Amino acid sequence: MDPYVIVSADTHAGLPTPEYRGYLESRYHAAFDEFLARLDAAAEARRRLGLQNQEFAEEWFEEHEEELRAGWDAARRDDELDKDGVAAEVIFPDADAVSATTAAPFGAGLGMVGADLDPELALAGARAHNRWLAELCRSSPARRRGVIVAPIAGDVEAAVAEIRRAHEDGLRGGIMIPSMWGEGRAPYHSGEYDPVWRVCEELDLVVHTHSGAAPRQELGTYLGLYTTEVVWWSARPLWFLIWSGVFERFPRLRFAVTECGAWWVGNLLWQMDVAYDREHGTRKLGSFGLTRRPSEYFDSNCFIGASTPRRRELSHRYEIGVGNLMWGNDFPHPEGTWPHTRPWLAHAFGDIPVAETRLMLGETAIGVYGFRREELEPVAARIAPTPEDLGQTEEGADVWKPAREAGRHWLAGADVPAVVGAARRR
Amino acid sequence: MDPYVIVSADTHAGLPTPEYRGYLESRYHAAFDEFLARLDAAAEARRRLGLQNQEFAEEWFEEHEEELRAGWDAARRDDELDKDGVAAEVIFPDADAVSATTAAPFGAGLGMVGADLDPELALAGARAHNRWLAELCRSSPARRRGVIVAPIAGDVEAAVAEIRRAHEDGLRGGIMIPSMWGEGRAPYHSGEYDPVWRVCEELDLVVHTHSGAAPRQELGTYLGLYTTEVVWWSARPLWFLIWSGVFERFPRLRFAVTECGAWWVGNLLWQMDVAYDREHGTRKLGSFGLTRRPSEYFDSNCFIGASTPRRRELSHRYEIGVGNLMWGNDFPHPEGTWPHTRPWLAHAFGDIPVAETRLMLGETAIGVYGFRREELEPVAARIAPTPEDLGQTEEGADVWKPAREAGRHWLAGADVPAVVGAARRR
Repeated sequence: MDPYVIVSADTHAGLPTPEYRGYLESRYHAAFDEFLARLDAAAEARRRLGLQNQEFAEEWFEEHEEELRAGWDAARRDDELDKDGVAAEVIFPDADAVSATTAAPFGAGLGMVGADLDPELALAGARAHNRWLAELCRSSPARRRGVIVAPIAGDVEAAVAEIRRAHEDGLRGGIMIPSMWGEGRAPYHSGEYDPVWRVCEELDLVVHTHSGAAPRQELGTYLGLYTTEVVWWSARPLWFLIWSGVFERFPRLRFAVTECGAWWVGNLLWQMDVAYDREHGTRKLGSFGLTRRPSEYFDSNCFIGASTPRRRELSHRYEIGVGNLMWGNDFPHPEGTWPHTRPWLAHAFGDIPVAETRLMLGETAIGVYGFRREELEPVAARIAPTPEDLGQTEEGADVWKPAREAGRHWLAGADVPAVVGAARRR
Repeated sequence: MDPYVIVSADTHAGLPTPEYRGYLESRYHAAFDEFLARLDAAAEARRRLGLQNQEFAEEWFEEHEEELRAGWDAARRDDELDKDGVAAEVIFPDADAVSATTAAPFGAGLGMVGADLDPELALAGARAHNRWLAELCRSSPARRRGVIVAPIAGDVEAAVAEIRRAHEDGLRGGIMIPSMWGEGRAPYHSGEYDPVWRVCEELDLVVHTHSGAAPRQELGTYLGLYTTEVVWWSARPLWFLIWSGVFERFPRLRFAVTECGAWWVGNLLWQMDVAYDREHGTRKLGSFGLTRRPSEYFDSNCFIGASTPRRRELSHRYEIGVGNLMWGNDFPHPEGTWPHTRPWLAHAFGDIPVAETRLMLGETAIGVYGFRREELEPVAARIAPTPEDLGQTEEGADVWKPAREAGRHWLAGADVPAVVGAARRR
């Protein structure tokens, strides 16, 4: 019953936007001033349109004013992770997901849409963020993996150069690409992006998409349309890479979809596999052009940075693949579990077997991101909850056994999912 | 143990394309000749690109040459329904889903994308199809409801006029709108479409989207991308209408998503409801602007023409809503159950309670489309399977009881889905 070595496969860090100036080549400073003005105007528009819950925002910033500085303050950062029981982290941009005050320059952040970016400026903004992030990671190298922001749509060659530079500079958390290429840019099935996949395979960098982008113009100001669609737009590159054979051409390439939950994965794999297997509905179609089932590429090359999966999602973990799921606290975003991770873990994982919990909470991420276990164990011994702390017993509840044995029912020859567990009251 | 009154909420009919000429205003005949040439070229391109399984196509047409004439031949049509045990049908366009030889003029069919259509020509094509379809329905009025093809994106006023004309002409199966509005056309949250919703509410016409459209240009020739995305693009208007308050403005309007399966509905409702209820992840957002939960609009206004749901989908029916699901045989498409509907029903529904089966196989559709039960009962008595024929017992299997009692677990206060049934071997 050792403590868990918990890795958050989804945290965020970013400077207050104006402070990025020092990391930006001076030839972009004038453009940066214009960008800052647009940023303020956009924040004002969001407030005016009522897209933000003002009351919540005020309370959030008042209650957490000091701790939120850990979004960019290296000294405070490990303290906040410690309090949450988190030994290590994989760091994405945009610390402030409430008021967007820590956006990297020129849109080089979570909401990137390829076609909306000026390729040169976006890469300049990415370099600024990546330089700063490398510093942040050097302050606590054993516990941090920084994700390279890589706006690849528009100028693939320059993006590859930045990926190499940032990797050289110490960033080892993989790269984050725009989840949407956008109108008029080549979709990710295009061979145009092969140099990106190639360099990431060579340097052992996980390619990520992270939730944020959506066709906002088309969705208008309907928040429900945004919350309903954002996962689909962020996850979409996953099936573009699988079906277009990227993992056949780059068999060691790894791809992760982060902070998109996991509720959609079981259906996606089921649907892709039965199509590939030419089940009744796809008999009439030509060749799918792959040599393996889609779920096999998923298992060998893909991961879900599920962040804070709900119980409904965890109940589907045998379809998704327990070894494909990585937990994250989404620190320091209010939709994450920080600063209440410990009770959250007890609720979510209380009846789940310890060995599975270890995989999802850290062991898989340790392997995927190349953390050194022996460096994290002493940290975990100091801060992390044990299975007992989460209310777990060694074996976990029997209630999951039929689901575990069934796994992916469509591959096991059964036509409905197995029992998915007894309901627990909220 | 009366026989089932089976309504197929998804069948297809269409003339061999050149024969639509007689239903098309003569001023469009020259444009029609050009359209026919493009249609041939497109079919040739599909074959060349290997998008079609040639071997399957040859077998299909050889094996069913005579019966497939029921796609447009009124005299044969009821015979084919009879053989399948189907008492009544809701008729969409495009009888030939293998080689597209029965496409209505100018793209007015299943794959409509608003922006790709010439509004005037598309409406002319729709009128031609709707006129012919009204004739087909008059040949067996008790058993047929024809769906009005309504290319609404581009010229709303003219589309409304055609909806009124076709309704007057006897079509009572509702309307089918393009599931994709496409680049540069107003999305369906726009008030621009209110005249369409208004006339459909007034005339009691169900608004449909039907699977078919996808951003083919963007997906390229990867069939897997098409099969993975087509349901999403076809279902998308459902959440646009819900979140933009269309069902608040038009409370008697009904909307159905047809031939998109039902596997995605449980997750969609869960996700929309927890967002609306401001569960942890959406606390920071502003108002969703609705007075009821999304699943409540779904229950009062929306239906899923699930066509041939797989066992996996039926196992989720208590989340989706048993009363929201309508079965269909997709006649005469090879991805449907025709001409093997009887054994298919026995496999799919064998352990499902009779009362639920009655709803899904026909009773809901009878209400939605205004069939007259007393006209269908004698037909059913002659042709339809009984519960006994499907291997059912009066109560259905006990295995579904926990799932039935739980319903939508997120509304019932449970945090994981209930037991979803014991697996049966395929």
